[in-house]
Amino acid sequence: MAYRIRITPQNKSITAKKNELLADKIQESGINLSLYCNKRGLCGKCLVKIVEGKLPPLKKMEEFLLEQKKLKKNYRLSCLYKIKGDLSIEIPEESIIQEALILKTGIKLSLPLDPAVKKYHLQLKKPEVSSPYSLMELFKQHFKEKNLSIPLALLKDMGKILNKSRYHVTAAVHKDREILSIEPLNTLSQNFGISIDIGTTTLVVELLDLNTGEIVDTLTGMNSQVKYGTDVISRLSYALLEEKNSEELRDSIIKTLNRMIARLLKKKKIDSSSVYEVVAAGNTSMNHLLLGVPVETLAAAPFNPVFTCLPELSAHASGLKINKLGKVYIAPNIKSFVGGDISAGLVATDLEKKKGNFLYIDLGTNGEIVLKKGKEFVATSTAAGPAFEGMNISCGMLALPGAIYKAEYKDNNLKTFVIENRAASGICGTGLIDIISISLEKGEISPKGTIQNKRKRIDVCANIFLTQKDVREMQLAISAIKTGIKMILQETNVKLGEIDGIYIAGAFGNYLNIKNSMTIGLLPQIDKEKIIFIGNASLAGARAFLLSKQAREKIESLVKRVQFVSLATKPSFQENFIDALEFTGQV
Amino acid sequence: MAYRIRITPQNKSITAKKNELLADKIQESGINLSLYCNKRGLCGKCLVKIVEGKLPPLKKMEEFLLEQKKLKKNYRLSCLYKIKGDLSIEIPEESIIQEALILKTGIKLSLPLDPAVKKYHLQLKKPEVSSPYSLMELFKQHFKEKNLSIPLALLKDMGKILNKSRYHVTAAVHKDREILSIEPLNTLSQNFGISIDIGTTTLVVELLDLNTGEIVDTLTGMNSQVKYGTDVISRLSYALLEEKNSEELRDSIIKTLNRMIARLLKKKKIDSSSVYEVVAAGNTSMNHLLLGVPVETLAAAPFNPVFTCLPELSAHASGLKINKLGKVYIAPNIKSFVGGDISAGLVATDLEKKKGNFLYIDLGTNGEIVLKKGKEFVATSTAAGPAFEGMNISCGMLALPGAIYKAEYKDNNLKTFVIENRAASGICGTGLIDIISISLEKGEISPKGTIQNKRKRIDVCANIFLTQKDVREMQLAISAIKTGIKMILQETNVKLGEIDGIYIAGAFGNYLNIKNSMTIGLLPQIDKEKIIFIGNASLAGARAFLLSKQAREKIESLVKRVQFVSLATKPSFQENFIDALEFTGQV
Repeated sequence: MAYRIRITPQNKSITAKKNELLADKIQESGINLSLYCNKRGLCGKCLVKIVEGKLPPLKKMEEFLLEQKKLKKNYRLSCLYKIKGDLSIEIPEESIIQEALILKTGIKLSLPLDPAVKKYHLQLKKPEVSSPYSLMELFKQHFKEKNLSIPLALLKDMGKILNKSRYHVTAAVHKDREILSIEPLNTLSQNFGISIDIGTTTLVVELLDLNTGEIVDTLTGMNSQVKYGTDVISRLSYALLEEKNSEELRDSIIKTLNRMIARLLKKKKIDSSSVYEVVAAGNTSMNHLLLGVPVETLAAAPFNPVFTCLPELSAHASGLKINKLGKVYIAPNIKSFVGGDISAGLVATDLEKKKGNFLYIDLGTNGEIVLKKGKEFVATSTAAGPAFEGMNISCGMLALPGAIYKAEYKDNNLKTFVIENRAASGICGTGLIDIISISLEKGEISPKGTIQNKRKRIDVCANIFLTQKDVREMQLAISAIKTGIKMILQETNVKLGEIDGIYIAGAFGNYLNIKNSMTIGLLPQIDKEKIIFIGNASLAGARAFLLSKQAREKIESLVKRVQFVSLATKPSFQENFIDALEFTGQV
Repeated sequence: MAYRIRITPQNKSITAKKNELLADKIQESGINLSLYCNKRGLCGKCLVKIVEGKLPPLKKMEEFLLEQKKLKKNYRLSCLYKIKGDLSIEIPEESIIQEALILKTGIKLSLPLDPAVKKYHLQLKKPEVSSPYSLMELFKQHFKEKNLSIPLALLKDMGKILNKSRYHVTAAVHKDREILSIEPLNTLSQNFGISIDIGTTTLVVELLDLNTGEIVDTLTGMNSQVKYGTDVISRLSYALLEEKNSEELRDSIIKTLNRMIARLLKKKKIDSSSVYEVVAAGNTSMNHLLLGVPVETLAAAPFNPVFTCLPELSAHASGLKINKLGKVYIAPNIKSFVGGDISAGLVATDLEKKKGNFLYIDLGTNGEIVLKKGKEFVATSTAAGPAFEGMNISCGMLALPGAIYKAEYKDNNLKTFVIENRAASGICGTGLIDIISISLEKGEISPKGTIQNKRKRIDVCANIFLTQKDVREMQLAISAIKTGIKMILQETNVKLGEIDGIYIAGAFGNYLNIKNSMTIGLLPQIDKEKIIFIGNASLAGARAFLLSKQAREKIESLVKRVQFVSLATKPSFQENFIDALEFTGQV
């Protein structure tokens, strides 16, 4: 016999058979019901109001919840409700799953909120003499999880906390398997995580509310490892000099991150013990140096990282100061120098789900290129050198206040734009690309990169100029990317015309001028609409990993499927690279 | 079509279908083939000699093994061999699974050797530029285990070890899931574990060879926590006095154990890094104090332990000095004061498998009694006090050299036996039982325990005697056990005549005189043959857990099934206890 179930305010009507689970039926109807605890009757997030229909006796958890939330007696947990007749129900807004915004630059991506760390508010039953269960068993029984683990340090605190709070506590649980914290009374509202983009130059630390997925605050700072070398290669070289250097590099960045985390928490008056997880995304080298893992095998051919996917580590062991039993998740490295920043970006763009062929390009000291061809993924990396970040350029600088980030040539006049509108103190990557493109069009530079008319330099504005050597540095950087794109298309037999979109990630962001980039050949000649700047996709991906454990599962399986093309070992690499040195549009 | 397989030297003949696995068929034939790595082709322990029949090309692992073991080319791994025709094979003795002797006192128990820590000797393939796998993936691929975890500390050493040894290493793996150690070249022969019996008074530490199951050496010492209280209750009281005391008690025993372990290793010239696991079995309180887990909830009604079954812990976190990534397994507590020493004993006797009804009694400061009734298990504990260990007795002492451990009355003469045949300096538990039984039979003590003829004391020998208070102490201890046995039988509706055997565990060992114990009522009146002394079953169980991970699985499931009877809360307890004070045989 089929029963009818009317659902408001969504105004749906569905049928159900006897003993079917109300939660299942609501989900089947297309409503995104919040099933935070996986239908185990533990979180209270799938409460619905039974407007008409059978009201079974309240279960213990329901009694506790209705009292806590001060709700009327006609609310029930839909994951515990077996259908026995016609029903009319109302689904409160709080029972609908929340979506967290992951990416909003270029394209939008939201994910259902399903963090690895979840908090549960519980009233445990104090054991009696006749049933002297261990305290640990009380939790195992409550969570219906016989393999639930509780770290030794927590076992040491547990008795006192339970006694003090009369067994009324909140537990933070990692992946439903490990309790990270037991806190007296109701601390559900205090559940935070931190996502970090570990750039070679810049660190971005973001504090997130794991209950809502909202960004509470963000802080940007310099990667303190810069003092050991501005680019990846020199930093790896430093790590290799002496055995202790790996740990020194690690200590340096961990100290900086801890200072940044502490500043964010202080500003928002949040205790570090309410932060249960950190997700960090960096390139392969940064990921290794963050953990103090030696890089001997990464720095020399065949360039083996020590790890790609790591299970969550202890935050304490990593040195990061959050909850003493908190976790750290490292965005998985893909292969060699295609690292966690790229895997984070793939997740932030949900590239796997898109139909067609796409290029994902991260423009930085190291250029990483991923081609999605149908369902296949092929990745490569190419050493562009630090020119794009303004390094090794006479008047180059990072994209900081005072940097020329944009230039236009209009009415015989070179107009420059400076970050924060200050007096120009140098040129950053996007500015360099504009100036070279303009000089090329004006004929001040030949397509081969030679400054014309026997001049020694190209003047930009007072005291700011480009030398012949600067142009050569840019030629090398651009050629690296150009060759990478050309060869990955060749290797996979994909024509430029078959590309449905190019995602550009990296610090360049929206300031990269597409037309100019195409003029000098940095980007291939393709419909401008198909080029999408997605900004800091590494940070967005770290956020995705923090807010959705599904995102972790997805990338861990995708990473294994990504094929790798090693450019340097291809016989045609040198030839292509030399060809590409010329400032001409890509074919 | 059926093929014929002849097996020597076992002289068996079996049939097999095409493509069946040779290892499976050998096992089915009743031969205990060693499948150490679970038929994954990793350990090389199931090698057989193909005397007649097809010889498929050698697989990489086989090539490596045959070269290492200097065997002829007609050996194959039976777990990789698919049957394609008639065969005649020879199974070398090394390919037969080894059994480890667990218990030899009273009854014998052997278990197939299947330790949690296994070592594998491997030649990994160095990755190439075109396939830049991470070092971690090399191990995952080799062990065919995608969830294989490698601790961060090991990731830090891995690159160097692999480079140094040219990817020729030995890995110690815990439960096939976590690598504990990667060592250059072949270190298969160095694989040790330690089992410990944590008595309230005495510690026994045993060094075992995990390859053979043999006891390499044993050391006995005093539990240094004795200085904080000789019995469990006073030790718990000390732990409760101040918060730091738990850790102080922990530090004390850990230091002692580390000294004992170091002495054993030094004597046998074994490096502590070759010891990968410790198993400790103690009563519930000792288990908590070993880990520094506070005992507030255990020391007061309703007497909740903090933990019963714990997953393997990090040895480093426990403070025990073995391999830096080694593990510690704690024999599971059952309920309240029925602890890991008892669960270890249940495994050492394999009580679950025996048909019929059995009593398992551990005689000590705390008396634990487990009744097996068919398939049911019921446990209780009863506080006997320290009299059995010679405490609170005027001339009492531990069973150390100089203690009277046995007494006989013959030809009007009391003959005493002293440990190590020295001059008597006191009486230990078994001696006390003999002397009281003799005094009772001689009429020097009345059945109610009163010393007769207005005498103040019972003289044993020069300067050694029992006072009225001493007799009372013994009455209390004996009554506790007597009441426990009586009530557990009552509760479960089992008559004494239905008991098929009584296992007596504990330090008393063989020195307990059965007739005398029955005379004073410590043991029930039952056919003497049914009483079996099993000695230190706690240590034997710890050994079983160390040598067989199956033993761990078994006890973890059994522990959940054990019901608990709390004697103290039964209304009839007081009455039974007072009745039992009288020195008469149990009914």
